[in-house]
Amino acid sequence: MPDLSKMVRESEIRRNEQGEVSSVNVWPRKVQIVEVGPRDGLQNEAEVVPTDVKVAWIDRLSEAGLQRIEVTSFVNPRWIPALADADEVMRRIRRADGIQYSALVPNVKGLERAVAVGVNAVAVFMSASETHNRKNINKSIAETYPVLEETVREAKAAGCFVRGYVSTAFGCPFEGAVPVARVREVALHLLEMGIDELSVGDTIGVATPADVHRVVDVLLKDMPVRRLALHFHDTYGMAIANICAALEHGVQIYDASLGGLGGCPYAPGATGNVATEDVLYLMRGCGIETGVSIEAAVEAAGFIEDHLGRPLPAHNLRARRGACTTT
Amino acid sequence: MPDLSKMVRESEIRRNEQGEVSSVNVWPRKVQIVEVGPRDGLQNEAEVVPTDVKVAWIDRLSEAGLQRIEVTSFVNPRWIPALADADEVMRRIRRADGIQYSALVPNVKGLERAVAVGVNAVAVFMSASETHNRKNINKSIAETYPVLEETVREAKAAGCFVRGYVSTAFGCPFEGAVPVARVREVALHLLEMGIDELSVGDTIGVATPADVHRVVDVLLKDMPVRRLALHFHDTYGMAIANICAALEHGVQIYDASLGGLGGCPYAPGATGNVATEDVLYLMRGCGIETGVSIEAAVEAAGFIEDHLGRPLPAHNLRARRGACTTT
Repeated sequence: MPDLSKMVRESEIRRNEQGEVSSVNVWPRKVQIVEVGPRDGLQNEAEVVPTDVKVAWIDRLSEAGLQRIEVTSFVNPRWIPALADADEVMRRIRRADGIQYSALVPNVKGLERAVAVGVNAVAVFMSASETHNRKNINKSIAETYPVLEETVREAKAAGCFVRGYVSTAFGCPFEGAVPVARVREVALHLLEMGIDELSVGDTIGVATPADVHRVVDVLLKDMPVRRLALHFHDTYGMAIANICAALEHGVQIYDASLGGLGGCPYAPGATGNVATEDVLYLMRGCGIETGVSIEAAVEAAGFIEDHLGRPLPAHNLRARRGACTTT
Repeated sequence: MPDLSKMVRESEIRRNEQGEVSSVNVWPRKVQIVEVGPRDGLQNEAEVVPTDVKVAWIDRLSEAGLQRIEVTSFVNPRWIPALADADEVMRRIRRADGIQYSALVPNVKGLERAVAVGVNAVAVFMSASETHNRKNINKSIAETYPVLEETVREAKAAGCFVRGYVSTAFGCPFEGAVPVARVREVALHLLEMGIDELSVGDTIGVATPADVHRVVDVLLKDMPVRRLALHFHDTYGMAIANICAALEHGVQIYDASLGGLGGCPYAPGATGNVATEDVLYLMRGCGIETGVSIEAAVEAAGFIEDHLGRPLPAHNLRARRGACTTT
């Protein structure tokens, strides 16, 4: 249920004389952006970004005012070579006060690596669809639960903030549609493990606002809205509209990636994350606080765009920077 | 006010147990797409597209199932050389039964050219902001009214369906913010002239859903929703979310351009139209009928993309076609 203390006043947004209660009545006054570019973005880049560049970029993200940054992933480097430098990156970034620097951990082994370099916020992950879960973490969903349960328990014991990801919640590249009941089942298992936050992901960017209403309605029957995060990809151009649908339910945490990093936007099946600067533009226009300025975000996106040497898809980056990168 | 006979049933979309009446309750069951690519899209292309290509493309739009196509503009060719072949294009396209083929007319002279080649649906246009109106049609807003009044009167006398465009309704490239009261004033003048439909345009793509709620709420106090069309550009990535906001008010007519044609998406101040195929994806996902298949739309977009030889920005085109055009 939306936290009524955080509503944008109706008068700020619209005056509806047809007597309809409008979605905007339940928009939160403030949202959190979780910047996943360094992890979800860079892990999908063809090119492995040098550690020095990652560290310099993440330091710029801190300066840009982003309050939650998903820095890297402590998975086996054999799986994701692009993030094999997780330990070094975590050690070398400047950690500003009040900013959460988190990392993915697949199991207790990954958790131990993370904690050893001072990580105090971790994320476990699994998929709502059996096939994607098997291909992504090489286990069935049933086999995954005990591994994550142990990881969450150890992470809490180590004093970590723990996020749980449910991938392919709106569609699976192998199975197609994913039943809402299955998403609910995986979500409830993760919540029972004691996670602090659940991030529900449209991994392949197929969701529309109707799907978001359906899934969020079901999830909010069993959990407080303040613990729910949504993670959208913009493959079919629906991500910003999907965030608007989630705002109607009072959802206050959104994952995003500067520049829309994450898989080539022009490749078939492209699954770039929704762009942080576009989410900021939406929120600013709707009178919802984020604590981050678009200008600072565009500058931070420009840094990694210049390194990658190709235009990133974020609309607010393109409209302000034009077609060409400086490389 | 939304036409209650056209509502998507709540149960089709969501079950909300918090007792909130949700926006989706007023989504129309069916919407009209007005394909403006041949006019708004091509008039903004750097390259002048040959008449043969235009005619072949428009014939494909008819085959794709689009029911309303804005073919060209009968403005003085000195202003828009890209559309100097308006008469020939209108004469040569195949006109399928039940499809509306419309054209812009700036004045009675343009109307006479249009009617002479069998046009029976025209659009007059002006801006909500004084400076844009002067730069675009070389007249003040006050000087524009009598010209459009005469044009609408003659068009109705000739049996034409008449649309009226209000440009820069959400922001002006020269004046910035545009007061809603000014948009209302221009809209009411056009409605009093006897136009059949009002298309309210975010010419530079700056609107957010909060702006859409504000403007549409004001306009619907003085006009039936069935006469209101919205025309969004995707400069800052808000177009699909803005359409969702308008759906909440029951708006049933949306302008769109295949491929997202209309200004280079990667140029500063890019103002590409919202992509037809992305609007179709949204509507299909939300259970709203359009009469057009995404597959047919993507094929039709691919034809002009291949001719232009650069990837167009439409997400559904990119996700299905990949980065490269065949040229």
